[in-house]
Amino acid sequence: MSDPANALVGRKKRSSDPPDSPRSVGWVTPQHALLASAANPLPLDCGRHLAPVSVEYETYGALNAARDNAILILHALSGDAHVAGWDATNQAPDCARPWRHWCVAPDGSDREHGKSPNWWDTMIGPGKAFDTNHFCVICANVLGSCYGTTGPSSLDPATGRPYGLSFPAVTVRDWVRLHARLLDHLGIDQLYAAAGGSLGGQQVIELGLAFPERVRGLMVLAASPRLSNQGIALNYAARHAIINDPWFARGDYYDAARRPDAGLGIARMIGHITYLSEMGMELRFDPGRRPSADLVRGLYDPHRLALEPGGYVPGNEFDVESYLTRQAEGFIERFDPNSYLYITKAMDYYSAADWGDGDLGRAAARARGRWLVASFTSDWLYPPASCRRLADALCANSQPVTYVNIESDYGHDAFLLEVDTLERLIVGFLEGVARHG
Amino acid sequence: MSDPANALVGRKKRSSDPPDSPRSVGWVTPQHALLASAANPLPLDCGRHLAPVSVEYETYGALNAARDNAILILHALSGDAHVAGWDATNQAPDCARPWRHWCVAPDGSDREHGKSPNWWDTMIGPGKAFDTNHFCVICANVLGSCYGTTGPSSLDPATGRPYGLSFPAVTVRDWVRLHARLLDHLGIDQLYAAAGGSLGGQQVIELGLAFPERVRGLMVLAASPRLSNQGIALNYAARHAIINDPWFARGDYYDAARRPDAGLGIARMIGHITYLSEMGMELRFDPGRRPSADLVRGLYDPHRLALEPGGYVPGNEFDVESYLTRQAEGFIERFDPNSYLYITKAMDYYSAADWGDGDLGRAAARARGRWLVASFTSDWLYPPASCRRLADALCANSQPVTYVNIESDYGHDAFLLEVDTLERLIVGFLEGVARHG
Repeated sequence: MSDPANALVGRKKRSSDPPDSPRSVGWVTPQHALLASAANPLPLDCGRHLAPVSVEYETYGALNAARDNAILILHALSGDAHVAGWDATNQAPDCARPWRHWCVAPDGSDREHGKSPNWWDTMIGPGKAFDTNHFCVICANVLGSCYGTTGPSSLDPATGRPYGLSFPAVTVRDWVRLHARLLDHLGIDQLYAAAGGSLGGQQVIELGLAFPERVRGLMVLAASPRLSNQGIALNYAARHAIINDPWFARGDYYDAARRPDAGLGIARMIGHITYLSEMGMELRFDPGRRPSADLVRGLYDPHRLALEPGGYVPGNEFDVESYLTRQAEGFIERFDPNSYLYITKAMDYYSAADWGDGDLGRAAARARGRWLVASFTSDWLYPPASCRRLADALCANSQPVTYVNIESDYGHDAFLLEVDTLERLIVGFLEGVARHG
Repeated sequence: MSDPANALVGRKKRSSDPPDSPRSVGWVTPQHALLASAANPLPLDCGRHLAPVSVEYETYGALNAARDNAILILHALSGDAHVAGWDATNQAPDCARPWRHWCVAPDGSDREHGKSPNWWDTMIGPGKAFDTNHFCVICANVLGSCYGTTGPSSLDPATGRPYGLSFPAVTVRDWVRLHARLLDHLGIDQLYAAAGGSLGGQQVIELGLAFPERVRGLMVLAASPRLSNQGIALNYAARHAIINDPWFARGDYYDAARRPDAGLGIARMIGHITYLSEMGMELRFDPGRRPSADLVRGLYDPHRLALEPGGYVPGNEFDVESYLTRQAEGFIERFDPNSYLYITKAMDYYSAADWGDGDLGRAAARARGRWLVASFTSDWLYPPASCRRLADALCANSQPVTYVNIESDYGHDAFLLEVDTLERLIVGFLEGVARHG
């Protein structure tokens, strides 16, 4: 997902509230729970049992006495548990740990460091779409990521060294299994709702099919029952870019002088191209497009291409190139290349139809609760037609589902940026869960 | 462009005719012309003057006495002058020179070697769309390529070594300037027609604007007045993949033990994703898509990802992955990574509107002749709406233009594969040039 700060030029957008705002959840501290130990390892789809497994999560708002007002937010590929407010452990702009949360400073200096605050603060807080005056909002980092939950950069107890590529393959179903353990840990039998966009939306689907009794309202944004072939193909090319980096070292780069940053940067560029729409790109980048003749006449020097491997190519002659370079540079500071391999694989593997032996209609028969499925007209990573397949399957099983195809130029990133529209939908949907759910 | 052999499963497709068929132009031998020398160098848009410049070209059919029956075919990114028939210099399956033409054997053994015959034989020959009984068809390799025309792998006379990245930046306009010199060399004042798809189509546009009096009929297929931002962005990521390859060596890899093959392979993967449509991919790859659970259960071993840099990742768990791997492997045998950098840059730079100081309408006022603009419904590299902009601009200048948006699942590759439809259109268009042109 893109940095929400990069909204379309000229479009009004909501930004995060400062920590002292009445609409902010304020300073928050990530929490950790040990959810699998040698005595109680986590069984994985690949057949292995993993232990220990520690999960990083955050909560905003209070759990009520009945423990029935919890909403679980599921994050996407490059997200983390830090979905709202300001991370109290990361206050100074110079506090960055490798692959730690987006590092922010409340005075705005984060911008200079290419950082951005929490990824969905616009939606979570007192009086917001997910209103923390009423709900206890929870978000946990997924297994295999690099933001506090056990992943390839964690120490393997068997060797005392980072797992690297000996970390087991993980799946969306594994993630959801772990989310269920977190709910047990927190003493929550049933969620009021779960919500997520992109790969987070696929976790919502999986939660609804694997644990249908544990969630009343399910919000699937910009996500479909499985990734398109195009998406799988682009992930494949992106993984190659990481693995072919001269510093990849078979994934064992944690103690090396350099890491496969350039490869990860290329992977991120490919990702970002899928997060925007061509229409959105035109609005944003065309005004700065210089005449081709100007670019060529003496401005373009092929020697500038000839940086050493691991460096970045300058010659950002088009605004879209500069944009991608910035995104890549920001990303390599905050993400683990191995995690990118594992999480994109989980994304590729996911297929909700597996619950129905390949038949999505049969899979959807397992569902309970009320569903909201929202797609965005210009999203080509999870195109509207593919999102709608979920709604159709639920509908065919007489499940209560609302499907909305939201007009937007933002492409896939719309689930982060179409805040006003989503807020209206989500507030209404959450009320409906109380009334009918 | 893709290997035309890879048509959608189950779709009837035309294949090349064997060399002894009456519909084949038979055995052909590439020719070479020295079109720029120290005394008469080729001026380039970047400001440099290049010499010597040798061009490889092929001709099929005879030039008539009036020298007015020539049709120039312009090739795309990875194409060459060998557009029809069988290359007499490349008869044996073991004859491959690096980056030489697709190496073919008439007995079909080419398939085993991952090779494919000439790239548009289906369209050129006696009785075909470009009927060599009536027309003299010419195709020349572009400047900067690796198929016989001067490019980065050619020897720099100043050093006696391959140019590598000291080769000057080239543009579509430079190519067309060189095509004009070839026409002079062949004694052709005015072409009967010019035709090309993709980057070849952009050469047709440029030919029509730079030398409007030198061509009567212009056929622009799957090409627009400029590349989309999405296209520029994907080319940018692809070039990074080449440059970040551990064997790139600042482009000076010609005498090295290894070349940046894996990087070029990744670039080719990215390219191929843009040549197909998601709809076409679903038809082709979905039938083989295994249940996710099967893939994960013991089949997926992250260790398989850990090949050394320069190797290829196995674990082609999805058919689309295997497809991309095959395309990449075939491509690295036949293309120069430096040429890929130069030609994609030319593709990015191209903007027909430069002739009108950024105003396509004004640029189109220079046009003469009759135009055919054809787009394909599922092409997202040069989407129909972008191709139509050319037709609109020509129309607004009262130029005779026919615009067709052809229904196809083939994506961008449709210009190679929708042979029947294109044949009907082209035959009619060429008759129209005679009648009205």
